[in-house]
Amino acid sequence: MKKLLMIPGPIEFDNDVLAAMGKQSLSHVSPEFIDIFADALDMMKKVWMCPGGQPFIMAGSGTLAMDMAGANLVEKKDKVLVVSTGYFGERYARLLERYGADIRILQAAPGETVPVESIERELRIGKYKILTFTHVDTSTAVKVEPEPLGQLGLKYDVITVLDGVCSVAGEEIRQEEWGIDIVLTASQKAIGVPPGLALLVASERAMEKFSKRRNNVLNYYADWANWLPVMQAYEQRKPAYFGTPAVNLVNALNISLGQILSEGLERRFERHRRTGKAFRSAIKALGLTQIPEDKYAANTLSAPYYPSGVQPIEFLQAVNKAGVILAGGLHPALKNEYFRVGHMGKITPSEVITTISAIETALKKCNYKFDDGIGIIAARDILK
Amino acid sequence: MKKLLMIPGPIEFDNDVLAAMGKQSLSHVSPEFIDIFADALDMMKKVWMCPGGQPFIMAGSGTLAMDMAGANLVEKKDKVLVVSTGYFGERYARLLERYGADIRILQAAPGETVPVESIERELRIGKYKILTFTHVDTSTAVKVEPEPLGQLGLKYDVITVLDGVCSVAGEEIRQEEWGIDIVLTASQKAIGVPPGLALLVASERAMEKFSKRRNNVLNYYADWANWLPVMQAYEQRKPAYFGTPAVNLVNALNISLGQILSEGLERRFERHRRTGKAFRSAIKALGLTQIPEDKYAANTLSAPYYPSGVQPIEFLQAVNKAGVILAGGLHPALKNEYFRVGHMGKITPSEVITTISAIETALKKCNYKFDDGIGIIAARDILK
Amino acid sequence: MKKLLMIPGPIEFDNDVLAAMGKQSLSHVSPEFIDIFADALDMMKKVWMCPGGQPFIMAGSGTLAMDMAGANLVEKKDKVLVVSTGYFGERYARLLERYGADIRILQAAPGETVPVESIERELRIGKYKILTFTHVDTSTAVKVEPEPLGQLGLKYDVITVLDGVCSVAGEEIRQEEWGIDIVLTASQKAIGVPPGLALLVASERAMEKFSKRRNNVLNYYADWANWLPVMQAYEQRKPAYFGTPAVNLVNALNISLGQILSEGLERRFERHRRTGKAFRSAIKALGLTQIPEDKYAANTLSAPYYPSGVQPIEFLQAVNKAGVILAGGLHPALKNEYFRVGHMGKITPSEVITTISAIETALKKCNYKFDDGIGIIAARDILK
Amino acid sequence: MKKLLMIPGPIEFDNDVLAAMGKQSLSHVSPEFIDIFADALDMMKKVWMCPGGQPFIMAGSGTLAMDMAGANLVEKKDKVLVVSTGYFGERYARLLERYGADIRILQAAPGETVPVESIERELRIGKYKILTFTHVDTSTAVKVEPEPLGQLGLKYDVITVLDGVCSVAGEEIRQEEWGIDIVLTASQKAIGVPPGLALLVASERAMEKFSKRRNNVLNYYADWANWLPVMQAYEQRKPAYFGTPAVNLVNALNISLGQILSEGLERRFERHRRTGKAFRSAIKALGLTQIPEDKYAANTLSAPYYPSGVQPIEFLQAVNKAGVILAGGLHPALKNEYFRVGHMGKITPSEVITTISAIETALKKCNYKFDDGIGIIAARDILK
Repeated sequence: MKKLLMIPGPIEFDNDVLAAMGKQSLSHVSPEFIDIFADALDMMKKVWMCPGGQPFIMAGSGTLAMDMAGANLVEKKDKVLVVSTGYFGERYARLLERYGADIRILQAAPGETVPVESIERELRIGKYKILTFTHVDTSTAVKVEPEPLGQLGLKYDVITVLDGVCSVAGEEIRQEEWGIDIVLTASQKAIGVPPGLALLVASERAMEKFSKRRNNVLNYYADWANWLPVMQAYEQRKPAYFGTPAVNLVNALNISLGQILSEGLERRFERHRRTGKAFRSAIKALGLTQIPEDKYAANTLSAPYYPSGVQPIEFLQAVNKAGVILAGGLHPALKNEYFRVGHMGKITPSEVITTISAIETALKKCNYKFDDGIGIIAARDILK
Repeated sequence: MKKLLMIPGPIEFDNDVLAAMGKQSLSHVSPEFIDIFADALDMMKKVWMCPGGQPFIMAGSGTLAMDMAGANLVEKKDKVLVVSTGYFGERYARLLERYGADIRILQAAPGETVPVESIERELRIGKYKILTFTHVDTSTAVKVEPEPLGQLGLKYDVITVLDGVCSVAGEEIRQEEWGIDIVLTASQKAIGVPPGLALLVASERAMEKFSKRRNNVLNYYADWANWLPVMQAYEQRKPAYFGTPAVNLVNALNISLGQILSEGLERRFERHRRTGKAFRSAIKALGLTQIPEDKYAANTLSAPYYPSGVQPIEFLQAVNKAGVILAGGLHPALKNEYFRVGHMGKITPSEVITTISAIETALKKCNYKFDDGIGIIAARDILK
Repeated sequence: MKKLLMIPGPIEFDNDVLAAMGKQSLSHVSPEFIDIFADALDMMKKVWMCPGGQPFIMAGSGTLAMDMAGANLVEKKDKVLVVSTGYFGERYARLLERYGADIRILQAAPGETVPVESIERELRIGKYKILTFTHVDTSTAVKVEPEPLGQLGLKYDVITVLDGVCSVAGEEIRQEEWGIDIVLTASQKAIGVPPGLALLVASERAMEKFSKRRNNVLNYYADWANWLPVMQAYEQRKPAYFGTPAVNLVNALNISLGQILSEGLERRFERHRRTGKAFRSAIKALGLTQIPEDKYAANTLSAPYYPSGVQPIEFLQAVNKAGVILAGGLHPALKNEYFRVGHMGKITPSEVITTISAIETALKKCNYKFDDGIGIIAARDILK
Repeated sequence: MKKLLMIPGPIEFDNDVLAAMGKQSLSHVSPEFIDIFADALDMMKKVWMCPGGQPFIMAGSGTLAMDMAGANLVEKKDKVLVVSTGYFGERYARLLERYGADIRILQAAPGETVPVESIERELRIGKYKILTFTHVDTSTAVKVEPEPLGQLGLKYDVITVLDGVCSVAGEEIRQEEWGIDIVLTASQKAIGVPPGLALLVASERAMEKFSKRRNNVLNYYADWANWLPVMQAYEQRKPAYFGTPAVNLVNALNISLGQILSEGLERRFERHRRTGKAFRSAIKALGLTQIPEDKYAANTLSAPYYPSGVQPIEFLQAVNKAGVILAGGLHPALKNEYFRVGHMGKITPSEVITTISAIETALKKCNYKFDDGIGIIAARDILK
């Protein structure tokens, strides 16, 4: 029995994207593939809303995208301010230490964000080179507003790094307009491509800073010095080689980016907003709370707490039996107190309803009391 | 018109492998995927002939596999001896420098290898921690015999790293028996899976050395400290998370490794030997020479020189028009003097004949004189 | 946006079945295909529960299966009793006339069946050679109980023909035990294979009657005399040729029959019973009626009347917008008064809920009043 | 090991065609499918070169297409002249008898055709209603020139039926210009779609004759009276229903017809001519003869005799081992004296060479003496 995969990545992928995955691989220097790669790079700049940026497509997971930004921008003793709203902020700090960064973490309580004023206060006094933040933390479903941080970056001459693994192509991002230097993500979330690609667009400013490094990048595979000529060659529709690109995944990316642009970014952002709201509305109607406060809640995933008396494993298995796969908690401190529902990419209203129905079925089985159907009704009110 | 892809990776892939690529992604922590990942790890140890080894499967290109070995084994000032038989030996030296290695390169002339005695002389005097060599250099088609180097590694307590990007699952490798510490490769060559996976098996000795590092690995994404618990968990058929694995590629890998084992390693090695010999025999019959001396020639690819008067672009386009895609030269010094033919993985005798026929057709078009059909006849004599 | 296809055929097909469709065609006389065809024929006898029967697999639609039974069994002036519970009973009468049958139709009112006593009365007095009935009429969702009619067939030496286009592999059928001579169907319904195959199992008695025909069959393509040696050869795993079989569809059939047997027939029948009941329960809860009386209602599809005030086109488009595709009416006399929902094959509880939710959404949009969610709650009560 | 399928159908299909086969089925009355069906019908008229014709697409094999023409055009006692150049001419005679035709067969010796003058003599004296001929007989590789027969049909007011199962979209056919009334085929040959569709275009004159039938068609499934309204509705992009179309096959047909038109009919005919000539040239160079005299030889398949001393099974198995699948003989009188090679559809020069190489390898294994490579050289001379 085919189950509906509603975790925060990998998501359910479009059939045409999957068909592209299953095609015989092209030579990475064939004219057909050069066009596919070039088109994908072009489209990334559109989806990222960063016409002047430098896109990178590499074989790897989202962590490689984080590593790439870290390795290429940090030099020993550089001061980095990390805004952490969950597991992945914490991870970014650990990662940056490898490259010798001098790190300060501003840690938000679970479900909250760090006030912009606190960030500005730090930047004002701290001589920071880089500011990183997780747009949507996959572990908490907390969303940080990027625009004010982009503005702070410009004001204090700090490079801003937006970890968009759980947001790009789902949440609104206007990289160039908002002044964000790096927006990075992975393929398997709202981008809608099976896992295996690390994606990143760097602003002109970021590439300029990179070009002025005093030392070699302390990482070979992720070194932009190796990849920049390759990306530039493909952008000019010429072959180039450093490592063999993951041609099937790039082919699939090309299809998915085309679908994203053909839906239209504003419509897509709006659709994700509505979907997120429908989920939150259902969760609330069912009497559950969720980790993020409403004003900080992401539209790409939800992170509801189990109601008291409901056991995680029993609940998740009952949801599974009802045909839907959800994810358990990830935040170390709260792991067994909440679950996660991904709702991004090509998700349809039907899939939202199916998911909420499965949640209701499982809650009932766990003897949680609620008005049968009330979650569905609440979601349907928003989706219609 | 479908062309036959006969470059040294990506190769032509099996339809069942491609079908696995195009399936809806599984959750990386689902029971089905845990079994797929665990089976793939188990089978890697068999294909590598290293029952006691520690396999790693990561999203990335072959360069990441090289980077992984380098980053995890090298500490600042470690002495590394690099045996270079082409572009990729040179690359490995550059890569290892990033991690502070003190490098000495033994460089062979194009088409030749470094004598074992020269290597032993260096090891005897040099206090080396690591010895790297390219089993088959994709730029020159030169093959290095691994067994003597494995033995030297044991004798002088040096960690041996076999870059098997163009050899694993094509050329004979008996990692454990031969005493090789690291055997690394990429998915898109003789392993038979579209590009996007870096694969590596480390010996117990290598993992022990790793466990005694004095400092953190200078690379986050490739750090075994992050990935070892994940691989061990999956081997025990339990979920674990550091970065999302490339589930579709792992699914395809699982199919391909199963096919490799079902063919049988000895039969597969023998088939590659016969295929390589058929190609070399055809090249010789056509009056062409190739970069490697016969005794150093790989079985997974060939690197023939253009006969005098034949122009690279004209030749490669004529081959293409005849239905086959070959690769140009890659070795910087010889780039325009030779071409490359990959012949590994599921390649059939028919495909060998088709390729040689296309080469004959193209040579003729380039006004090169030879007995029409003589290459095909020579190959067929070996293949029958 | 992928919509859920919930019409009474073609249904949503399993991914492995679709993958079999998309494979390169095998030669119809290759050993691989001979095994596939032979296995499919073997499995048909199991799914039909007719171990002693003669299966036929032919390229064509369900109408061809009806035609095959008609053309091969009827000779000029043969008396045939047609039990009609909708459009397809009527069609069978028209079809049989082509072959010179002398037909008497027992026509049930829409939603009802013909009492067994009325059928027996006719058989007792009528000197009939053949009795046909539609197990589930796709136009009305009325189900006829086959067992009593099979028994009448044996009692009065009449060949019984069960039109199982909308029932085989969904509704309970025990062909041999119940004494039914012909059970025919099409691939695209509960059998779970894309449209293009006509499937039929004939009892020994039917084949014996066929062997005693006085005249050639008045149809060349459907003539068992042409196909019987082919089916028998494949059953003995030998090649044979009359017309080229639809190898991709047969390959898909082979996968689907395997899935059906691996689920288990009793479990499958039970699952369809539960699904059918859930739908009927939801329809009732929403205050709608449906064509068949409850005791005659099929489990493979439902045929609810539109509530007053609800316009067919407006309703079906609203359902479609909510992500589900349903079918309009088919019975000529009632065409615009009802709609049809297919719920057979691999259908999951989630898909049932999604469908009912879409129906609720559409009813609401059409200003029909009901307790929001009440259909879903009713279905969930049955499905749990 | 993937073998090359070089039989006269099913052939090797294009990957995009196979991908269309494997997609989730559309509803047969959905707007998307209506467009696909309508486009396919439109393109058939172009590929058939019969802008004023009436196309039919039906689930079934090529024999159904023959049956359709027979059943709809023949009435009891109609005189039909059958030109037979092999197994399929004979079959057509048997088929037409079912519908009461009064048949006269003009039988050519194997490898020859019936002179146009003999046909005209019969038509002049015979009061024939219908003239049938096999454009390319799949059993003998004999090709009949259609144009003179089309002209005779017009001159003597006889309906001409071209059995194009092994020719449409490979051999030149200009249905309307040449005055042919019926051109019928199956999907799995030069049309390039897996088996399962019967295809036919009828001239206006043929449809007019049909409309004046005195009696019902003696076949229900194949009756144009049932299908004409359906085809006309789809041509006008409206839904209609008689039997469920084989939607996946129609989807694949739509792709393949698009590819055929995008190659261009004249180029495609020329490519088949060149391919056929290359095969014949290779066969001759190898010292083999073939059934048809050169002037009657088809371009879509070849039918060489085994040289003396070569055993059929040994030869075909050796070809198979060399990676290519060929067909044995089909003509009852000559079955074990010759083999058949299909070379139509998307076939590439590489595939021709591969096939001839496999034939050479097998001949050698069977101890037949010839200059090694001479067949390949001969073919390459034509293909270049």
